Amino acid sequence: MSAKPHPGIPRLEAFSDGVFAIAITLLILEVKIPHVEEVRPGDLAHLLTHLWPSYGAYILSFVMIGIYWANHHHICRFFTRSDHAFNLLHVLFLMCIAFIPFPTAILGQYVIYPEARRAAVAFYVLGMLLPSIAWTLVWWYASSGSRLIDQDVDRAFVRRLNVQFIASISLYASALVIALWVPMVSLAICIGLTLLYLLPPPTPPDRARVAS
Amino acid sequence: MSAKPHPGIPRLEAFSDGVFAIAITLLILEVKIPHVEEVRPGDLAHLLTHLWPSYGAYILSFVMIGIYWANHHHICRFFTRSDHAFNLLHVLFLMCIAFIPFPTAILGQYVIYPEARRAAVAFYVLGMLLPSIAWTLVWWYASSGSRLIDQDVDRAFVRRLNVQFIASISLYASALVIALWVPMVSLAICIGLTLLYLLPPPTPPDRARVAS
Amino acid sequence: MSAKPHPGIPRLEAFSDGVFAIAITLLILEVKIPHVEEVRPGDLAHLLTHLWPSYGAYILSFVMIGIYWANHHHICRFFTRSDHAFNLLHVLFLMCIAFIPFPTAILGQYVIYPEARRAAVAFYVLGMLLPSIAWTLVWWYASSGSRLIDQDVDRAFVRRLNVQFIASISLYASALVIALWVPMVSLAICIGLTLLYLLPPPTPPDRARVAS
Amino acid sequence: MSAKPHPGIPRLEAFSDGVFAIAITLLILEVKIPHVEEVRPGDLAHLLTHLWPSYGAYILSFVMIGIYWANHHHICRFFTRSDHAFNLLHVLFLMCIAFIPFPTAILGQYVIYPEARRAAVAFYVLGMLLPSIAWTLVWWYASSGSRLIDQDVDRAFVRRLNVQFIASISLYASALVIALWVPMVSLAICIGLTLLYLLPPPTPPDRARVAS
Repeated sequence: MSAKPHPGIPRLEAFSDGVFAIAITLLILEVKIPHVEEVRPGDLAHLLTHLWPSYGAYILSFVMIGIYWANHHHICRFFTRSDHAFNLLHVLFLMCIAFIPFPTAILGQYVIYPEARRAAVAFYVLGMLLPSIAWTLVWWYASSGSRLIDQDVDRAFVRRLNVQFIASISLYASALVIALWVPMVSLAICIGLTLLYLLPPPTPPDRARVAS
Repeated sequence: MSAKPHPGIPRLEAFSDGVFAIAITLLILEVKIPHVEEVRPGDLAHLLTHLWPSYGAYILSFVMIGIYWANHHHICRFFTRSDHAFNLLHVLFLMCIAFIPFPTAILGQYVIYPEARRAAVAFYVLGMLLPSIAWTLVWWYASSGSRLIDQDVDRAFVRRLNVQFIASISLYASALVIALWVPMVSLAICIGLTLLYLLPPPTPPDRARVAS
Repeated sequence: MSAKPHPGIPRLEAFSDGVFAIAITLLILEVKIPHVEEVRPGDLAHLLTHLWPSYGAYILSFVMIGIYWANHHHICRFFTRSDHAFNLLHVLFLMCIAFIPFPTAILGQYVIYPEARRAAVAFYVLGMLLPSIAWTLVWWYASSGSRLIDQDVDRAFVRRLNVQFIASISLYASALVIALWVPMVSLAICIGLTLLYLLPPPTPPDRARVAS
Repeated sequence: MSAKPHPGIPRLEAFSDGVFAIAITLLILEVKIPHVEEVRPGDLAHLLTHLWPSYGAYILSFVMIGIYWANHHHICRFFTRSDHAFNLLHVLFLMCIAFIPFPTAILGQYVIYPEARRAAVAFYVLGMLLPSIAWTLVWWYASSGSRLIDQDVDRAFVRRLNVQFIASISLYASALVIALWVPMVSLAICIGLTLLYLLPPPTPPDRARVAS
């Protein structure tokens, strides 16, 4: 990168990395241990295998926060300035990331109950929709009119990210509506989006040599 | 900055950032999941919407810790030396920051009960008052007589921060007294102060070009 | 090291270090405090000494995560490039590390019950097997055909690590099977492996001067 | 410092800082919130004030971990090399630091019950004794025969630290024995030692200009 990054960016990155690392590691605290006073010890094997929805929710959210972490670093390289509004939008984004352990716990505990599935899946999808909106706001604020990014960042690349982020919000919003009717389809969309995000992120043509 | 920062400052900043990032991320652990054995799964949607005071307390405290983090970085740039008493005052400040998740949980769980509201709001306001006192002590110790800051930091800027910090303590102290009579007014002051702190922090004239 | 490390490696190391430090410190949260409402205060000494399986599980998992942290740094020095698949394998590895507090809590609470011992030990051994597989995948992906390591890293050293990692997986897999028959032998293998890993890690001949 | 620090030292410092910051921030999770289903909301003010032993234990342990963090940095400057045994002793030390939230919770919950006080205080003092032993081992291993510190570090300074660390262990060990007879005297010794450690740490004569 030609321009030296603004001193505020590394600090923001370090703080964000802290929140990412803590939120991702706290996920395991939401897999509740069958307490020894409430269960017969002989049932332990049975109980541990019946926690599979919690394991599934743990894996799904861990991968999703991991993807946000990777994308955050991928995109942060393009920010060369920061300002107060940018910092506040970042706090909003981190608030949504730090919230993820809660809907993850709800999904893991309630998805197996048919009468709670709709609420559990809708709440989880909402938990995915919020950071995708907040992150789009961060990106939109920084990139529109090259407010906080270099003038020479390829415009086609900026547009491609805009399209991708809007598509992501639209898909989560649709999944939220679908959850109210057929929750398992909504959850499948959510898992599908996560798998899709595992593909390598787009890179601008003139920076293609800077690997992620 | 002309003077190279003291080697103790970056270490103190890194440790503080760790405590900020952890305290802010632990907030979500205090939003208690309605446990599956205690509720009817069919009531989940109802339960999740009735947690709104906990969501509100989460957002309020998250923004407040985020503001302290941003201000801490904003102010730390002016410290060019450190000493033992300064480190101890910093530990006192971090102790108050790390305490915030506890009154946040109390507010979220009890604010809806009229007979507990007074205690819940007063305790939360106390949880906001303590770090504002501790932070003022850190600033006052470092800035009085230019003990740990550069001689050339604009005196009007130092005075402006002094006034602002004393005003903040006074307002929280008033809110604490008010909480004992009309808790919802006290909470409104608390929210109002948080919104006020979202405005850009003051910058000294000769350093105005160093963006936050 | 002649080759400058790829910018992606320090970021990956910092994020991994965060997850290691958090997972290792969260272990203590799984040692459950006998709650004052559930016990007679006069029984406290008795209760604290009867938590010895939890203390043992805490020590065993703390040392094991500490070993993974040390080995991660030891090996990361050899990575000079990174790519998307490498980052994803790293997320998989960290997911297994962050999972460790859960089987640790299960072992600590249930190993004393003869009827739960088989399930508790098998689950704990599984919790050790998973990161050993994930870490071997990270290493294998990076080292095969010198994909992400220097060409000049001693091939005998690479082979020696390969053998060691495969042996580790095989021993944990064997311990998992043995746990279903004689859980205490399986646990002894697990403890023995941890003690074995406390020995200094192998170093390539041409880098022997780079101390761990 | 003339000698460039060994590359292993900054990594060890960063990892230790992570564990310090997390352990110190987790302390608040052990101040248990009176749960809304178990109490009458009208009793909240009463309940919050009766948690004073938990607040006291929180403050005492927060200050103590803060002191360990400050001393760790103060001493780490003298380490110029590291080896495998040194890293393992560090893991042992961090294991004792990360354990502190547990005896803190026990002290906070049980010190008010006369029949549990002896066990609660003795357990807390043990929780203070263990890191003081582990830290002395780290220092002794590094300093004896200038194994991992510079030859030119003042020998009188090394001896002074040795005496101080041995005195600290002796006092905690004495407090542990005293706790079995008069727990409140033991706790007073513990608090007194913490206050004593708040005094500035000793500095070697030839490095006196390097402020802490």
